[in-house]
Amino acid sequence: MQQFITDPKVKMPFYTVMDAYTYDFAQKKADAQKVYLIGGDPYLFTVDNWWREQRPMQRVAQTLTHDYWEITVEPPHHRWQYGFVLESQTDTLFFGDRGAFPVSERVLTYANYYFRLPYLHAIDAYRAPTWASDTRWYQIFPERFANGNPSLSPTDVRDWSQESPTTSAFYGGDLQGIIDHLDYLAELGINGLYLTPVFKAPSNHKYDTEDYFTIDPHFGDDETFQRFVDEAHHRGMRIMLDAVFNHIGDRSPQWQDVLQHEEKSRFKDWFHIESFPVQTGVNGNIENEPTLSFDTFAFTTHMPKLNTANPEVQDYLISIATYWIEKFGIDAWRLDVANEVDHHFWKKMKTALTAIKPDIYILGEIWHSAQRWLEGDEFHATMNYPYIETINDYFIDKSIDEATLISGLNTQLMMYRKDTTAVMFNMLDSHDTARVLSRMANDKQRLKQLLAFLFLQKGTPCLYYGTEVGLDGFNDPDCRKCMIWDEQAQDKDLLAFTKNILSFRKQYNHLIQTGHLTWLDTPNELIGFTLKDEANQLTALFNRSPETRRYQQTAALKEARPIIGHFETTTSHIQLQANDFIVLEQSL
Amino acid sequence: MQQFITDPKVKMPFYTVMDAYTYDFAQKKADAQKVYLIGGDPYLFTVDNWWREQRPMQRVAQTLTHDYWEITVEPPHHRWQYGFVLESQTDTLFFGDRGAFPVSERVLTYANYYFRLPYLHAIDAYRAPTWASDTRWYQIFPERFANGNPSLSPTDVRDWSQESPTTSAFYGGDLQGIIDHLDYLAELGINGLYLTPVFKAPSNHKYDTEDYFTIDPHFGDDETFQRFVDEAHHRGMRIMLDAVFNHIGDRSPQWQDVLQHEEKSRFKDWFHIESFPVQTGVNGNIENEPTLSFDTFAFTTHMPKLNTANPEVQDYLISIATYWIEKFGIDAWRLDVANEVDHHFWKKMKTALTAIKPDIYILGEIWHSAQRWLEGDEFHATMNYPYIETINDYFIDKSIDEATLISGLNTQLMMYRKDTTAVMFNMLDSHDTARVLSRMANDKQRLKQLLAFLFLQKGTPCLYYGTEVGLDGFNDPDCRKCMIWDEQAQDKDLLAFTKNILSFRKQYNHLIQTGHLTWLDTPNELIGFTLKDEANQLTALFNRSPETRRYQQTAALKEARPIIGHFETTTSHIQLQANDFIVLEQSL
Repeated sequence: MQQFITDPKVKMPFYTVMDAYTYDFAQKKADAQKVYLIGGDPYLFTVDNWWREQRPMQRVAQTLTHDYWEITVEPPHHRWQYGFVLESQTDTLFFGDRGAFPVSERVLTYANYYFRLPYLHAIDAYRAPTWASDTRWYQIFPERFANGNPSLSPTDVRDWSQESPTTSAFYGGDLQGIIDHLDYLAELGINGLYLTPVFKAPSNHKYDTEDYFTIDPHFGDDETFQRFVDEAHHRGMRIMLDAVFNHIGDRSPQWQDVLQHEEKSRFKDWFHIESFPVQTGVNGNIENEPTLSFDTFAFTTHMPKLNTANPEVQDYLISIATYWIEKFGIDAWRLDVANEVDHHFWKKMKTALTAIKPDIYILGEIWHSAQRWLEGDEFHATMNYPYIETINDYFIDKSIDEATLISGLNTQLMMYRKDTTAVMFNMLDSHDTARVLSRMANDKQRLKQLLAFLFLQKGTPCLYYGTEVGLDGFNDPDCRKCMIWDEQAQDKDLLAFTKNILSFRKQYNHLIQTGHLTWLDTPNELIGFTLKDEANQLTALFNRSPETRRYQQTAALKEARPIIGHFETTTSHIQLQANDFIVLEQSL
Repeated sequence: MQQFITDPKVKMPFYTVMDAYTYDFAQKKADAQKVYLIGGDPYLFTVDNWWREQRPMQRVAQTLTHDYWEITVEPPHHRWQYGFVLESQTDTLFFGDRGAFPVSERVLTYANYYFRLPYLHAIDAYRAPTWASDTRWYQIFPERFANGNPSLSPTDVRDWSQESPTTSAFYGGDLQGIIDHLDYLAELGINGLYLTPVFKAPSNHKYDTEDYFTIDPHFGDDETFQRFVDEAHHRGMRIMLDAVFNHIGDRSPQWQDVLQHEEKSRFKDWFHIESFPVQTGVNGNIENEPTLSFDTFAFTTHMPKLNTANPEVQDYLISIATYWIEKFGIDAWRLDVANEVDHHFWKKMKTALTAIKPDIYILGEIWHSAQRWLEGDEFHATMNYPYIETINDYFIDKSIDEATLISGLNTQLMMYRKDTTAVMFNMLDSHDTARVLSRMANDKQRLKQLLAFLFLQKGTPCLYYGTEVGLDGFNDPDCRKCMIWDEQAQDKDLLAFTKNILSFRKQYNHLIQTGHLTWLDTPNELIGFTLKDEANQLTALFNRSPETRRYQQTAALKEARPIIGHFETTTSHIQLQANDFIVLEQSL
């Protein structure tokens, strides 16, 4: 499926078969009671005028400030010229390329007052790999997942334990450790593995790359890595690696050469250096502003920023990205600090990667709205922080109410093409955040509820390693504790629940990804929605309050089958205990 | 100067010296009385929180539906994280990446609620050639400008006259004819020539290219063309040619090969062909839909659309564009039907042309709003129909009032970066439209008024050949009459006026392009504005009514010096006769 956006207010999926696309029209709420689309091929005329037809649009979502309207149109000649007619209680407006005007014959017949989709080209279209929207990811921080080959461990390795790690501690996790537990992950229901960096680097997190072409010797070597990829593929799992291309480690030969030869270094244009000799300065706050003479990631002296406008740097980074695909067969790249690298470079990389692997999945680390990176020529998806943070605000911090949750999630759902939304990367927590379990005072029931909500969302869900057995941890480095392999210490009930919810997601993925979402009118601290396709409907209810909550029973709901979660029924209501949830299914 | 847009609501010039940029914030009118920007470097912290500062923005423009606010910010580390605080009479809202919320401590301190300019890269910036914003263009339709070498004329050439041409008539205009009149154009005050197509093609308009590498033999040859370029350059004039890359002529060898060999043609993938044998069908209207089996320009059978996703076609078209630059030294390309060609190709072409000629000017023919093509990686400007049509609606058709004129022009002025606006191509009429003189029933006074208004607008003005001597004509082909060279038939008064207004524009270009624009509060059918920089202010008033109109005299205006136009003064008022205008200058 291919899609286009011409305008932040107008989105359209443009199906591969070129038979349909959709307009979403965001506008100030309550302005319009009805919205119509007027459109036609710009080169088709009646005797008197440009030919057009007017059709009603459907309101598909609402937020605190906007209504979203949608319609599907089939442009027979790949072109469309269109405007909107908005009916409010007081007046009728035409909205087009020149703005809003009261409806009049002059305005409606003035072809140049309309928006234009001049010609829909497949080469400009957004396309996501088909496998991506059916993936249940698991994020591994390799140094802390499992130690499969103690002979590779750093000399100062500590005993494997769930103690709070320091920022510089090593525990000996490695690739063999992951290989040893692939069956565990397969049984859990995972079919995608995202590994934080595995290339040679001094730190335990490896974001300060020393050599992009070498597996960190404490993790393994080329042979181990190839075996890891093959064994994962054998189990139907895709592999995503972490590409740190915004900056490089200060131990890299390139930066070392700069430090040694200063402005005579042949690598001086690989970086953003303002003056020589380079000054490493201090990490700053507002009272103590940084005095670096070169750009870095944040103000981190040991991560000098790469100059991705330099063709040599471009070629170098693209050679890395293609090397791990061509030689080892990885399936995806997660791009670290992706928003701070230039668009020009990401477009070039997308072209290079797609040429050698058409179904590559490219995921950018961007914490904010990312339309510009998701037009189809840079990334397929971003880490969906704006979506997930809204969920966490509601369920964990309880800092927002139901209306704000719905508004926040609808805003994000309406922001991107449907194909993009389906591959957005949904992780509740990661190596960069506190673990959600700790944020909820280790309340496992609340964690289950939150996981259930996550796995019912459009997008591809990701579990952070250990979540399934009750691993906790506050902010970095606490969120990077060693995985619990001692079966006595694992939370078996949580593990069983996680398998269950992953299995549920696998079974219902199509309905969740493509079904029409409707938020239910629920009482305070109860949130609910339905997901519906032609054949089936899921109804999900979540009680985030510490008290029982009730939802009005309907005749249809009475016949619905519970799938996962717990509830009670009264003659008139569905009743949920504190922090519980229920998912019901009914055939239509 | 370089600029960025991150969002249609947020624009920012990003100066080359990296010292400042500007936010424009478009919002529903009357919602906000005051707007503030809150922002800071995303990686600078105070002891407790992310550091930010709040500063008031200025309202710089208004339309019927929006206010535009602006502020200049200097991001010392090339990054900015920002949001807006909007104060209305009833409440105070924060507007950021997650939408609008009532202001609260939670919202203001939540870093991820803010918009992000992650890192401003020069390689992603919009840059226009510096010469472009100081150009006064003249558009020539070569077949009708001057016949300088009758031996080249088609056999069926007609006598040079201002009769209404038929669609297929030839009059023998050629390159030598243009060369012969370069001194005339220089004296007129022109320093840029835009020629509609000059490559070999059967029609008189040459938009049905047969051979992109050959000057049409009726126009001249390589030697004539080189002499034309050199003679123009010698007079300080830039040359812009017309690139018809959306489609090719049906007499081209490529399309002829398809017609002959059908699906066995080696050129079959150069086009968008749905089925073989190719069906040429009929030009359609809605009752008689086209039955073409291939895509064309509009439904014009003799202009088959090129498949610009095909790398062979890309290379071919880019080789044409570079050939005329490298071999003959042309300065600019105007891209015909630019909106219907894919973005991927235009980006590739921009890269190729800028590599060989960094100060190339690329102008796209797009009749609607064109933000997506003007981000910096496709075109520098588009033909400014949305702006000009609004002017013509006001002065010619009188179909809109002052408020609608101001709203329409402000909308377009606020749509693009200031550097883009300064190079937008402003032509009142062209070979594609009726001449404005004819649209105003040959009223020369009204034409002068309209020309004066055009030459006071930001953007680069263009005269359509013959306008200066009173050449008239309704829609194509009537707007393509032969140029008037008979001095008895030329309107000498209009010619003198045109020289005058071009000279005025040359002198005041900097003030017009960079000055702050303020619309005056004028009576019905009188429109006025000031343009102001640090040292000077222009005040311009235009009376479009058939009656006298008055504008309140001020003390400052009394001291202002009339520059061009006519007016009378009373003790209290400036008085303009029907269809007259005046431009006054004052030092500040």
